[in-house]
Amino acid sequence: MLYPNNIKKSYSKQNISHGNRGMDLESELNITNNYYKEKDLALIYKKPTPIGIVDVSYKNQKKIIEKAYFKEQSTLDYNGIYKGKYIDFDAKVTKNKTAFPLANIHKHQTEHIRGVIRHKGIAFLIIRMNNITYFLKGEDYLFYIDNNIRKSIDYNYIKEKGYVIKESYLPPLDYLKIVDEIYFKENEYE
Amino acid sequence: MLYPNNIKKSYSKQNISHGNRGMDLESELNITNNYYKEKDLALIYKKPTPIGIVDVSYKNQKKIIEKAYFKEQSTLDYNGIYKGKYIDFDAKVTKNKTAFPLANIHKHQTEHIRGVIRHKGIAFLIIRMNNITYFLKGEDYLFYIDNNIRKSIDYNYIKEKGYVIKESYLPPLDYLKIVDEIYFKENEYE
Repeated sequence: MLYPNNIKKSYSKQNISHGNRGMDLESELNITNNYYKEKDLALIYKKPTPIGIVDVSYKNQKKIIEKAYFKEQSTLDYNGIYKGKYIDFDAKVTKNKTAFPLANIHKHQTEHIRGVIRHKGIAFLIIRMNNITYFLKGEDYLFYIDNNIRKSIDYNYIKEKGYVIKESYLPPLDYLKIVDEIYFKENEYE
Repeated sequence: MLYPNNIKKSYSKQNISHGNRGMDLESELNITNNYYKEKDLALIYKKPTPIGIVDVSYKNQKKIIEKAYFKEQSTLDYNGIYKGKYIDFDAKVTKNKTAFPLANIHKHQTEHIRGVIRHKGIAFLIIRMNNITYFLKGEDYLFYIDNNIRKSIDYNYIKEKGYVIKESYLPPLDYLKIVDEIYFKENEYE
């Protein structure tokens, strides 16, 4: 299993890029979500990417996709349940060092974040930028969107409002610790 | 728009099969979920079917799937948020008139139902059988599974424990009305 070695490497050389570690944000989140499931802490899954099917064939009565294209998710990629609360989030990586380009998040996804919060769910973004993984509350994301006409979120805003998700061996990205801090400990949420 | 005519037909001729109406259970649920979204009552989506990609090509820098197969969903098909609560369900149709075959629900899906309830979410099955659409609470489904070794759920059990979802024009299947009755009005849930 290569994973532990890769992780050690990333600890010993702090400025190593996440790409070189052999694990991307999606894999780290999948391992984290599996960990949560195994420990019975939460049930959170990545939704499959929707596809548009162009052509199919049948083999032994099984449908085989012969041509298809990827469609845009109209919601966020991850959702589930934690401590009785509905959780919904997306995870994005940018190589941009000074600003997070808003082209990464589609308009219907922004409206989805707004809807989840209105229906008393927990919505947030996980943004990896400058090799740091930030947890940005949906509320703080919407505040920026609603009060700025810029096409990107300034890195300073993410640094100021975002919570750093500590990276570890297992789970690789314990983002529910931040959920606990923000929505459960402070009782802001109830 | 053919839909209103088709619906009328199904009312005037009660024993017409749902298939003949031009609408299947999935379409009715999609329209219902869209209605809930439009009216800002709930945010509930069908998850895309997961696929396993065998071969891709690129055209104008866009990834095209050249071969893929359908994979099994490890969760249920529908989830979302309603009145701050996590909602998770699956919808099944059977032509069997006396029993609902349990082969329709995979073991990991049964465990998922158990998990959702343990984490204080609302889990249920929508079962269409004998031209009636039933709402079966996850708890009642699990009770049957845990206390029977049969490979199907007797129709009498579904009739006894299930709540009939009334069919209408819009929304076609107002299942949240049942959720209200069971989980909100009776305060069984909190």
